[in-house]
Amino acid sequence: MPTIDPWRPDRAPQPPLSGTAMSTSATAATRQPLSATLELAIELMRRVSVTPDDAGCQALMIERLERLGFSIQRLAFGDVDNFWAVRGHHGPVLAFAGHTDVVPSGPEAQWHTPPFEPYINEAGELCGRGAADMKGSLAAMLTAVERFVAAHPEHPGRLAFLITSDEEGPAIDGTRAVVEHLREAHERLDYCIVGEPSSSERLGDTVKNGRRGSLGGVLHVKGVQGHVAYPHLAHNPIHATAPALDALCREHWDDGNAFFPATSFQISNLRAGTGASNVIPGELEVVFNFRYSTEVTHQQLRERAEAILDAHGLDYRLDWTLNGEPFLTARGELIEAVLAGVNDATGETPALSTAGGTSDGRFIAQLGSQVVELGPLNATIHKVNERVRAADLDTLSQAYEAIIKRLFT
Amino acid sequence: MPTIDPWRPDRAPQPPLSGTAMSTSATAATRQPLSATLELAIELMRRVSVTPDDAGCQALMIERLERLGFSIQRLAFGDVDNFWAVRGHHGPVLAFAGHTDVVPSGPEAQWHTPPFEPYINEAGELCGRGAADMKGSLAAMLTAVERFVAAHPEHPGRLAFLITSDEEGPAIDGTRAVVEHLREAHERLDYCIVGEPSSSERLGDTVKNGRRGSLGGVLHVKGVQGHVAYPHLAHNPIHATAPALDALCREHWDDGNAFFPATSFQISNLRAGTGASNVIPGELEVVFNFRYSTEVTHQQLRERAEAILDAHGLDYRLDWTLNGEPFLTARGELIEAVLAGVNDATGETPALSTAGGTSDGRFIAQLGSQVVELGPLNATIHKVNERVRAADLDTLSQAYEAIIKRLFT
Repeated sequence: MPTIDPWRPDRAPQPPLSGTAMSTSATAATRQPLSATLELAIELMRRVSVTPDDAGCQALMIERLERLGFSIQRLAFGDVDNFWAVRGHHGPVLAFAGHTDVVPSGPEAQWHTPPFEPYINEAGELCGRGAADMKGSLAAMLTAVERFVAAHPEHPGRLAFLITSDEEGPAIDGTRAVVEHLREAHERLDYCIVGEPSSSERLGDTVKNGRRGSLGGVLHVKGVQGHVAYPHLAHNPIHATAPALDALCREHWDDGNAFFPATSFQISNLRAGTGASNVIPGELEVVFNFRYSTEVTHQQLRERAEAILDAHGLDYRLDWTLNGEPFLTARGELIEAVLAGVNDATGETPALSTAGGTSDGRFIAQLGSQVVELGPLNATIHKVNERVRAADLDTLSQAYEAIIKRLFT
Repeated sequence: MPTIDPWRPDRAPQPPLSGTAMSTSATAATRQPLSATLELAIELMRRVSVTPDDAGCQALMIERLERLGFSIQRLAFGDVDNFWAVRGHHGPVLAFAGHTDVVPSGPEAQWHTPPFEPYINEAGELCGRGAADMKGSLAAMLTAVERFVAAHPEHPGRLAFLITSDEEGPAIDGTRAVVEHLREAHERLDYCIVGEPSSSERLGDTVKNGRRGSLGGVLHVKGVQGHVAYPHLAHNPIHATAPALDALCREHWDDGNAFFPATSFQISNLRAGTGASNVIPGELEVVFNFRYSTEVTHQQLRERAEAILDAHGLDYRLDWTLNGEPFLTARGELIEAVLAGVNDATGETPALSTAGGTSDGRFIAQLGSQVVELGPLNATIHKVNERVRAADLDTLSQAYEAIIKRLFT
């Protein structure tokens, strides 16, 4: 791929990222030589790897990892490319996990520049799809490991990479399948750092040490359609369900705990009616979702929700989807190393959080591993004009390196 | 229009109408000479008078009424043809009211024969659009008046016709406008028989002496859209509204009275959500309808519904539509004449009812008139293969004539 000058101060400046101070030094940062991390991030971002297409990103990573002495297992499942790479033969395994796939660009006309032509703007921000989620993190991991291995070629423990191209999609043939393979192969995975953009206002201010579970339900309540003038000949499913919906919304599912907020129930969609104002509908559809803590199980939530519906005598069908069980990494070697390593590199004392959506961490945790998520600011992910402060990627790489040192030296 | 033989025993027989006994005599009725009522009904049904197009029906009626000595006022409003016809100079006015327009045929392929080619099947049923709603009634009124005038050319009282071609449509430039005209012209209208198909199982079993009011509401509740994983940043309008909906469904609006069932509240449509299962919607739409008795006013219903919404602290917009106020004709000269006249012709003792949807009777009642609806069976109205027992139209004409006699001789 030809080298393109990514410095584009001619581009119209964009509003600065939330919490990113527009210091003179950031502006003055333009036209300096690119760091290894930024060079690699840009190389990855130029590859149009919309899920599940890896578009050669993994080949680029594998080439660099092989040069470092990593042993590579390519693990393609279905149309998804994945790989597992290990360096070292003894001791605990610290894996960096991530994905090369990105979400689609969305309407290109709303981007200030083409989403797959990364550039650094006047404010010192690396702009383009994948800058924050998560090609920036992939580059930071790889350069961190390169520096660490150069300094400690005979390091204790084992370093690993678990890379997929299916995190933004169905998430079936990606990390989940790789984890299944590792389990069957009796591979060890003690510590895992997922490069998801965990930071909120400043790089390193938040580390995710778990995620809530996600349980979805689609409820169909049957009634009898009819004319509003003859309600005695119909059975209005909206009227029948109203008290049950109210009860579900009022229900106190749990109190959460030190790591998780209370379990939350949210109705996302309601549908009933033909559109005609004089027809009593024959069916009501309710789509809802639980984000739940480790204080309840998905089985308990299902039973309790169904008990509420049953108590209201509804004729219903309820289809459940378990999107992810909750996981939690309690304080221990990994978290201590992450908190200290982030502080070494950034001066921040990260908050531990389990908020937000699901991530591939839920699959990795099933191996019994300690799992955290640490990455750049998530303000622009999945949006047009995705971007990240360029200097943050260098700092993130230093944080990853500091964590490795705290665990393996 | 060329005369077509309406007897079509070659047509495949259709399932008999509800409550219509398939007696041998009914089958044997085929191929007898057509009565004047059936001949006129068929002439009207051949005219494709889909709302608001009258298609020459009124010209046909007017020609016959002028021959009887009626004085005609053609009252076109907008694209709607109407007329008001009166015979006689003194005493109370008995008007027959009806509409020449019909609803569209619906899918023609589902009709056994073309909807505007009326015919009488083996079961003795007159089939085609408008047979029951209400060209059959129009023919029966006209022939009843023809016979009565022939026998009583110097009858006391005044006979009238109030005919529109906009009952099945917006109902703005039809009866409502004619009534407004009559009010301004200080025209008298003491008794009115609307030819709407009021019968349920047998001709004359039911007479409508009023109709409930109809009040519609469209409620928009505002919330704040967000991600289901971050409910504290959103405000779910479904959750906020659930208790208010439950309260509205539970509310006891009134007890009705001797003539009206209790006021009924029905939600016909609910809409919320983007379709995505992880997005908390920003708005909820609820469409509902009251069918209300004379025990409450539409103002009271509005105030009470809004008080319930206000009590739940909702951020809402509520748009009301008053489709029709309730009306009631108490027992008096008209009802006594109708009950006796129907009994004369059919042997039935009609039940008085205010059930069902709205009709143009609501507008006529505003003149202070006594109003009833009397017509054939309504089992097939607004459906494909609309039909009515042919013999019922002759009997209906006899009932109309008997009512005139009881009032005006």
